[in-house]
Amino acid sequence: MADAKVFITLKEGILDPQGKTLLRALRELGYDEVEDLRVGKYMEVKLTGGDAGTLESRLGEMCERLLANPIIEDYRMEVDV
Amino acid sequence: MADAKVFITLKEGILDPQGKTLLRALRELGYDEVEDLRVGKYMEVKLTGGDAGTLESRLGEMCERLLANPIIEDYRMEVDV
Repeated sequence: MADAKVFITLKEGILDPQGKTLLRALRELGYDEVEDLRVGKYMEVKLTGGDAGTLESRLGEMCERLLANPIIEDYRMEVDV
Repeated sequence: MADAKVFITLKEGILDPQGKTLLRALRELGYDEVEDLRVGKYMEVKLTGGDAGTLESRLGEMCERLLANPIIEDYRMEVDV
């Protein structure tokens, strides 16, 4: 049994309207210390069987095929066996 | 200048239809090793000024007031000064 985490972020240069909206709202609330904010996705995945290497390579495949959009998004994984 | 990360997850017991849909789709693609999947949000925040403690407490306030919905979501932060 392994607990994995997947972090999906927009690639640099890809516009993030949700982040810009939150940034503006925070400034309006007086949080002037916020310079920038970008929004991504975070997934907690429970996996069974296999060693860490296999699980990580399978999870990478899942990201490429379904969880992320590799054209506009980057992803990063952490697998704790 | 500090780089902060915010992880927002649905509280236990709160239904996650997006996670369930991804889980089913992964199973249909043959990824039977996936036991469970929950989707949350991940934010990268650039902050200026203040020490780590102040920035963390301000960021916690931003989560409570705007970034997360504390009724149904938990949040966790990492602040690297």
